[in-house]
Amino acid sequence: MTTDRNGRRIATDGGEEFEEYADLGATTADAMAIAETSMDRVHELVPQERPNDRLRAKSVHATGDSEFQYLMRFANDPVPAGARAVLDERPIVTDITMVKSGITGRGHDCEVRKAIGNGAELAAETGMTRTAASVLELDREGVYEDAIAVVGNAPTAALALADCIEQGTRPAVVVATPVGFVKAAESRQRLRDVVGEYDVPAVTNVGRRGGSGLAAGLTNEFVHVASDVRSGETTLDALEAGEL
Amino acid sequence: MTTDRNGRRIATDGGEEFEEYADLGATTADAMAIAETSMDRVHELVPQERPNDRLRAKSVHATGDSEFQYLMRFANDPVPAGARAVLDERPIVTDITMVKSGITGRGHDCEVRKAIGNGAELAAETGMTRTAASVLELDREGVYEDAIAVVGNAPTAALALADCIEQGTRPAVVVATPVGFVKAAESRQRLRDVVGEYDVPAVTNVGRRGGSGLAAGLTNEFVHVASDVRSGETTLDALEAGEL
Repeated sequence: MTTDRNGRRIATDGGEEFEEYADLGATTADAMAIAETSMDRVHELVPQERPNDRLRAKSVHATGDSEFQYLMRFANDPVPAGARAVLDERPIVTDITMVKSGITGRGHDCEVRKAIGNGAELAAETGMTRTAASVLELDREGVYEDAIAVVGNAPTAALALADCIEQGTRPAVVVATPVGFVKAAESRQRLRDVVGEYDVPAVTNVGRRGGSGLAAGLTNEFVHVASDVRSGETTLDALEAGEL
Repeated sequence: MTTDRNGRRIATDGGEEFEEYADLGATTADAMAIAETSMDRVHELVPQERPNDRLRAKSVHATGDSEFQYLMRFANDPVPAGARAVLDERPIVTDITMVKSGITGRGHDCEVRKAIGNGAELAAETGMTRTAASVLELDREGVYEDAIAVVGNAPTAALALADCIEQGTRPAVVVATPVGFVKAAESRQRLRDVVGEYDVPAVTNVGRRGGSGLAAGLTNEFVHVASDVRSGETTLDALEAGEL
């Protein structure tokens, strides 16, 4: 482990050097330079003082919009909860394929799976959306218990997940940023109500915006934080105490 | 073919009814209702008068932001060009996996492929980003010629694509909405300069925002338009004349 010219850690992992924080996916000189410059600009816009600021920064990074930090909402310390779940190698369960595709393949050993594709019979029988049915089906199988539950696209998946939590399921952490004009904001509000009542850690946003890229970015941030815990840069105790 | 209560066409396709325009992926009653309500709200915000308005509407739908329509830029009639390419079953080539995952599987017979994963040697040799190298590698193989070229994430892929066009490659249409703080806006401006010079149809946006969901949504709109051409709702000639 060495540091770069800005004093940030450079990890040597399997013989390949990469700048850990900025982007675990950046592996070439150009990509690392871009990732580093990009996070420098984001950090000018989002001062890093508390754990949730890492998610605020990631929201700005993922959307390209400095205002997005003010749209983020947090419940029950999602950063240490998400990092702990990554360190415990809990599954990351996304609503749709696109969000799954956005989850980094590096820095974790969590199984990454998607809900969509399950529950086809339930959807056909009831007329509910395929994503909602898929969440209910996976929940029946116990998949969401202590998992990293991610909804980036489908409001009805977020509503189904809220129902599951209300009925006793306890994800390790919830990431929910479905986008759109119908039920998106409402589904996130419903999730906030439920995670508040049952003490489930969660990160969501307000408003109609959001989407798969944002959800994947926030989830990847848990992986980055877990890497920092692994390297001794921070600890879960410190994060739980509200320190970076 | 029948019409729903709002006078829109309902297609009966393989025994399965679905509302054609709103969302080719919506197959259950709840999903169709959501897709329909959602496009109704979008169309209140983005009047549909000219072909490019379909892409403006899609940008609002994909981002959940009514202001996004004013950030869209068009060159050389991308709507008929994109629809024609879909009807001709030209390949859809995306920069990254996440964009590929967002391309609808219904309503077209185009091969959908991603650039990333190609050109690893070139990236390792030169230090350029893996996505830029992958675009150059596929272009060497002739993949981008007359293809639907989509960049949703990587500014360096957009810059590489601009170089390819400058050196003689002619995609059927370009969709470019890379997001971020470093080179994203600049890469789209460079593409606009090049497609303007070489008469390549293109849809891009200005500003730092954008992303995979937007790029996939815009590309899917070409599929929707192609479906409308196939069903006789409109024609390529009408679209080329600037009519809906």
